[in-house]
Amino acid sequence: MSSQTYLAIAHRKFKTLQSLIPKDWLLDPLPDPLPLDVRSLVSKSTVLTPDEFSITSSHDVTSLSQLIHSRALTSEAVTTAFCKRAAIAQQLTNCLSEILFLPAIERAHALDAEYKRTGKTRGPLHGIPISLKDTFNIKGYDSSIGIASLAANPAKENAALVDILLEQGAVLYCKTNVSQTLMALDSHNHLFGRVLNPRNRRVTAGGSSGGEGALIAMGGSVLGIGTDIGGSVRIPAMCNGLYSIKPSSQRIPFIGQEIGQLPGIDKLGVQASAGLMATSIRDCELFLKAIANANPWEKDPNVAFGSWEGQGEIGRKPLFGVMRADGITTPLSPVAKVLDETVEALRKAGFEVVEINAPAFKKYHSLANSFFGIGGNNHTFDILERIGEPLIPWLNTRLRRKRPADLMQLSELHVRKSTLEKEMLEIWRDEDGRRIDALICPVAPHPVPEIDRWNGVGYTSAFVVLDYPAGTLPVRDVSNDDLKDELPESEVLGGWDSRNRDLCKLSTFIPLVLCLSYHSYMFQTSGYPFPSSVEAVVNPILKCYADPSESGHPNLKDRTVYLNTKLSVQVVAPRLQERRLYQAMALIDEILHGASSENSARIQSWSTVA
Amino acid sequence: MSSQTYLAIAHRKFKTLQSLIPKDWLLDPLPDPLPLDVRSLVSKSTVLTPDEFSITSSHDVTSLSQLIHSRALTSEAVTTAFCKRAAIAQQLTNCLSEILFLPAIERAHALDAEYKRTGKTRGPLHGIPISLKDTFNIKGYDSSIGIASLAANPAKENAALVDILLEQGAVLYCKTNVSQTLMALDSHNHLFGRVLNPRNRRVTAGGSSGGEGALIAMGGSVLGIGTDIGGSVRIPAMCNGLYSIKPSSQRIPFIGQEIGQLPGIDKLGVQASAGLMATSIRDCELFLKAIANANPWEKDPNVAFGSWEGQGEIGRKPLFGVMRADGITTPLSPVAKVLDETVEALRKAGFEVVEINAPAFKKYHSLANSFFGIGGNNHTFDILERIGEPLIPWLNTRLRRKRPADLMQLSELHVRKSTLEKEMLEIWRDEDGRRIDALICPVAPHPVPEIDRWNGVGYTSAFVVLDYPAGTLPVRDVSNDDLKDELPESEVLGGWDSRNRDLCKLSTFIPLVLCLSYHSYMFQTSGYPFPSSVEAVVNPILKCYADPSESGHPNLKDRTVYLNTKLSVQVVAPRLQERRLYQAMALIDEILHGASSENSARIQSWSTVA
Repeated sequence: MSSQTYLAIAHRKFKTLQSLIPKDWLLDPLPDPLPLDVRSLVSKSTVLTPDEFSITSSHDVTSLSQLIHSRALTSEAVTTAFCKRAAIAQQLTNCLSEILFLPAIERAHALDAEYKRTGKTRGPLHGIPISLKDTFNIKGYDSSIGIASLAANPAKENAALVDILLEQGAVLYCKTNVSQTLMALDSHNHLFGRVLNPRNRRVTAGGSSGGEGALIAMGGSVLGIGTDIGGSVRIPAMCNGLYSIKPSSQRIPFIGQEIGQLPGIDKLGVQASAGLMATSIRDCELFLKAIANANPWEKDPNVAFGSWEGQGEIGRKPLFGVMRADGITTPLSPVAKVLDETVEALRKAGFEVVEINAPAFKKYHSLANSFFGIGGNNHTFDILERIGEPLIPWLNTRLRRKRPADLMQLSELHVRKSTLEKEMLEIWRDEDGRRIDALICPVAPHPVPEIDRWNGVGYTSAFVVLDYPAGTLPVRDVSNDDLKDELPESEVLGGWDSRNRDLCKLSTFIPLVLCLSYHSYMFQTSGYPFPSSVEAVVNPILKCYADPSESGHPNLKDRTVYLNTKLSVQVVAPRLQERRLYQAMALIDEILHGASSENSARIQSWSTVA
Repeated sequence: MSSQTYLAIAHRKFKTLQSLIPKDWLLDPLPDPLPLDVRSLVSKSTVLTPDEFSITSSHDVTSLSQLIHSRALTSEAVTTAFCKRAAIAQQLTNCLSEILFLPAIERAHALDAEYKRTGKTRGPLHGIPISLKDTFNIKGYDSSIGIASLAANPAKENAALVDILLEQGAVLYCKTNVSQTLMALDSHNHLFGRVLNPRNRRVTAGGSSGGEGALIAMGGSVLGIGTDIGGSVRIPAMCNGLYSIKPSSQRIPFIGQEIGQLPGIDKLGVQASAGLMATSIRDCELFLKAIANANPWEKDPNVAFGSWEGQGEIGRKPLFGVMRADGITTPLSPVAKVLDETVEALRKAGFEVVEINAPAFKKYHSLANSFFGIGGNNHTFDILERIGEPLIPWLNTRLRRKRPADLMQLSELHVRKSTLEKEMLEIWRDEDGRRIDALICPVAPHPVPEIDRWNGVGYTSAFVVLDYPAGTLPVRDVSNDDLKDELPESEVLGGWDSRNRDLCKLSTFIPLVLCLSYHSYMFQTSGYPFPSSVEAVVNPILKCYADPSESGHPNLKDRTVYLNTKLSVQVVAPRLQERRLYQAMALIDEILHGASSENSARIQSWSTVA
C-alpha cells in the first residue's frame, strides 16, 4: 500500500508498452531541441517508407476503404503504416495506453486473405485500423484508464462496440491515453504520463480522450473512438483540430468499458456517449452509418433501434441558429470571431442564421457539475487509495470526497433537468415557428489553452445533459491578428468568466524563456514517462503555472502560445438526430472549406507541416 | 386533518361528477337485481338513440374516422353518443374521474365547422373522442388520481400528450378512474370508489388504468390512454378483453402527469410508458402512427425521434418464440391452454414457433419490485396522511413506509438490471441464430381473477424493466371445459405460485349465494360511491374474501366466476420496435380471428351481449 506500489506498476506498464514497439520503429535519438510542432518529425524520420507516409498522410477512412475494396491497397499495408506512425506518435506525444501492433497486422493479413478468398469485404470498415480510448475493453488487454490499481487486469470480454467493429472488419491496433479519473481536461495520469499536443506542445491536447486526439493529429490513426460526458470527445477534437461527433447516448454501444465510476451510478445521473474523432466530415457519416447498419441494439440493450436513414435530416433550405454565449463565460475574441465568420459564410452562401437566446442554457453549467458529483467521488478515491496513488495536480485542488447524493437530492436534480429540457425544446423553433435545423455555438469560450488551463466545460457538458448530438468542426488556424484583440467589453459575469479572461490577459511575471525551458523539460520527462519523474519533477513545474487558483500567476505569459492551433465551432442537433447533425456539419464544412475538401482537416493539417 | 376531511372532499367530488351527467342520461331506477354482465343494460336503456347505440357498438376508431372524413357522421354526433354511453358506463361501473361532456360536444361542433370551412381534417383522430386515465393533466381539471388531498387542484397546463391529441383533432370528454397509489391491481380508491368489470362484476376490472378498461368494455370509449409501469395498461386490457399496447417508454409523451410519486424519482428507477387500449388491432397502428407523425419529441424531450415506419418490422416469414412460464408462477390451465392454442394456430397457419427458455426472466419479478420500492413509499404516505386518508384494504397489508434506497443500493439495482438486459438479448435469436420476430407469453399466470385477488405482475412488469413494447390480444372466452381442468402438475415454486394455485382451488367455506349477495350490495354502494359507504360497508365485505393472506379463505368459492371473461395472450418485441410488435399482433389476430375481423374485439364483445 506504499506510494512505491503505484510507481512500480507504472514502471512495469511503461516498460511493457515500450517493449511492444519494434526497435526499428524507435526515433532514436530525439532531436534536441524538440520543435513545438512535433508533427514535422514524422516526415524527417526514416521509420515510415514513402508509401507508408503517403498512406497515413493523404487519406481518410473513405478513401482508404475505396482503395482496399479496389485492391489498390491491402489492409496489411495500411495497418502496418498506421502501426508505425502510431509508434512514432507515442514517442512524441505519449498518446497510447495499450499496443496491439503485432496481432493487428496478423488480423489485417487474415482479412486480406478473406477478401481474396471470398471476393467480399465485410463493409466500409473492412481492413481499416481504428484506435480506441483506453476505456473500451478488449479481451486480454488492460483497461487501466491510467490508474495503477486497475492495471495488470486484462479484460475478460470485449466491449459491445469492440465486437461490432471486429465483425465489421475493423483492425484494432492500439488503445489511447486518458486523463486520470476521466474528469480532467488534460490527458495526464501517473501510469502513462501526459499526452502532448502534437501541433503545439505548449497547449493542451485536451481530455479525457486526449490520446485519441493527439494520435489522430499525428497521423497515427485515421479514426478514433472516445467517450464524452463533459466534452471528452469534442474537447480533444478541438485541441487537435479534428472533426468529431458525440452522438446521443443511445446511438453507439457504450457497455463493456472501464470508466472508473461506481458500477451502475451512470444510470442515476447523465449518460455518457461513445463518439468519434475523424479527419473528414464524410468519415463521420461512414462510421455512424456502419454502426447503425450493424444492428448495435442487438449487442447493447441501451442502444436505440433505428437505421441511419431514420436519424433525421436537414430541410431543403436549412435554417441555422447561432448561440454566441452561454451566459456564464463570454467567449474570448478569437472564439467570437470564428463563430461570426462561420455565420457570415453561411449567410453569404444564402442561408439564414437566426440568433438564439436560450436563458435556460446558462443553468446547465452548474446542473452538469451537480450530476458529475452525485457519487461524491468516493469510488475514484477508493480505487486510487487502494495502492496509495495520489491525484494529479490539476485534480488535487478540485476533487474531494463528499457525501453521495441521497434519493431526495437525486430526484431534485432530475426535476431541474426535466424542467430545463422542456424549456430548451424552444430553441428548435424561431420566433415565426420555423424549424431550426441545427445550432452553431462555441466548443469552449477560449482557444486551445495552455496545458492544465482548460476553463470549465459548460459549452460541451450541456449537450450531454440534454443528450443532443453535437460535433466539432475545425474552421481555421489562430492568426497573428487574433492575438491583438482586446478582452470582451462586456462586464465580467463571475468567477468562470474572470478565469476565462485570464487566458488572454498578459503578464510578465515569469519570463517566457523560463516557461519554454520548463516545457521542454517537462516534455522530455513526460514524453518518456518514467513515473518517478512524472511524480517528482513534472508535477511541481506544472503546478507553478497550470492552476490559476493556486499559482498566483493567472495571466498569460505570451499570446503566441495560441499560434498553430485550430479554432473550431460546435454544431448541435436535437436528440437522436445524428444524421441531421451530420448533414448540417457537412454543409457548413463545404461552405467553409469548399466542396472538394471532404478530406479537409487531414489535407490542411499535413499541408502546413510538409 | 381528521378522517372527515377526505370523506368530505370525496363527497364533494362525487357530487360534482354526478352533476356533470345530464339528468336524462341517468339510469333511474337501476334494475334490481343487477345482472353480472351489466353491458346488457346499455341496449335496454332509453338513454341512447338507436343511432347512438350503433355508433358506439359497431365501430372502431378506423371506421369512425372514415365515416367522419366521408361526412357520413359528424364528430358532434359521435362525441355525443360516446358521452352518453360513458355516462351510462359511469353509473354501472364507476369508471370515470372527470367529466368534460359539455366542452367536448362544443369542441366536436367546432371541429365539424372547421372541416366544413377548410375541407381538411387534422388527420385520422379528427373528431374522435378519446378517453384518458386520470393521471394526464388537462388544463382546468383535477388530476386527483383518487387521492383526496390532490383533488380541487385543477391542472395549470396540459400534458404533452393532451396537447398533441388536441392538435390532431381528438375530442377529450372524460378522464378515468384508477387504483389508489396507481400500484394496486384493482382500480379502487376512497375518492371515486371501485371500478367494476362490466362483463362480470365478480371479477376485477384490473388496474391501475381500470377505469379505461371498464369504460371501453362498456362501449363508452373507443380508444383510451393509460399508463403502465407494472402492467397497468395490459392488466385492465386483459380484464376487459381489449387490445392494448404498452410501447417503450420513449414513444408516447409521458410528461405532464400526476403519478403520485416524488417528482423526479421515476428517473432513478424504471420508466413507465403511456399506452393505449383499443377494440381492434388496427386502431393500435392508427394511434401509434398518428402520434409518431405529430413529432412528439418536439413536445416531450424524453420521446425518441423516429417515424412509425422506422419502428421496425417483422420478417417476410416471421419466426415466433413462445415463453410458457416465468419460473415464479406456473400458469393455471386456462392460461396455458390459450397460449398453446395460439401457438398451434400459428403452426397450423404455417409459421414456426420456437420454445424460449430464458432463465434470466425469473429474476425480473423481484427486480421490478425492488425498483418500485426505491422511494420507500414515503411520498405516497405523505400525500395520503396530509388529510388523514387511509390506504385501501388491499394495499393496507402490502404498503409500508420504508427507508428510501441510497445511492449504493440504487447503483446496485441498475447493475442487476443491466446484467439481465444483456442476458435477455439472447431471447431474440433461436439456437440457429435466426431472428425471433416476436415473443408470445401469458399476460398473467391466471385468468381474470376475482376482485382484489390479482396475484403478482411478473409477466407484465418485466417488460417495463426491459422497456420492451408489449401488447395484449384477447383470444377467446373462458369455456365450461376450462373450469374442469386440474391444477398444474409441476411442483409448487414458492409463495407466488402457491397463491396462484389458490385461484383455482375450490373451497366451500362460504356459500356461493352469500357471496353473490355481498357482490350485489357492494355494487350498489360502490356504483354510487358515497365515500362513507365505501369505507364503512364495502371494505369489510371485500376484506372477507379478497385478500388470501388475511381472509383465511384463500381458495376459490366457485370456478364459474371465470365464465364470461376473456383469455388473452401477451405479445412482445424488442425495445423501440413498436411497429414490429403491431405487425406481429396483427398477424396473430388474423390467424386467430380471421382476416375480416379487424374489429374483432368490439364485434365479439357486443354480439355476445346483444
